[in-house]
Amino acid sequence: MEKLAKALGKNIRAQRKEKGFSQDALALVCGVDRSYMGRIERGEVNITVEKLYRLASTLACEPASLLPSLSSLD
Amino acid sequence: MEKLAKALGKNIRAQRKEKGFSQDALALVCGVDRSYMGRIERGEVNITVEKLYRLASTLACEPASLLPSLSSLD
Repeated sequence: MEKLAKALGKNIRAQRKEKGFSQDALALVCGVDRSYMGRIERGEVNITVEKLYRLASTLACEPASLLPSLSSLD
Repeated sequence: MEKLAKALGKNIRAQRKEKGFSQDALALVCGVDRSYMGRIERGEVNITVEKLYRLASTLACEPASLLPSLSSLD
């Protein structure tokens, strides 16, 4: 699980930076606690699919685009 | 959330049937309770990304392929 959470967090962080959001701003818009947002990006938590969609719609990208491929986690 | 969970459940069920798994067999291999597996497919629960990956690797497909597009949920 750890590799997945870390890879997903990295993708979310990269997409956030590309869209010019601060971590606090993304947390605010998504209705997520600021410290939890940091834990998501560091890969410390296993988020739900619903939260993945909230993040993706805020970051204006497809949720699928944030997901690491299965083979990348081998 | 409901639309997302229902669409995702439908995709998981379709992929399961395509691969010839019974619901019980998929639940067993994934280490998921049988009744919970039914709730996932009916869109009654909000699964974690980690569970999505477990289901996808068992169904030999990319997790991203099970996700409904954002626009399909509008």
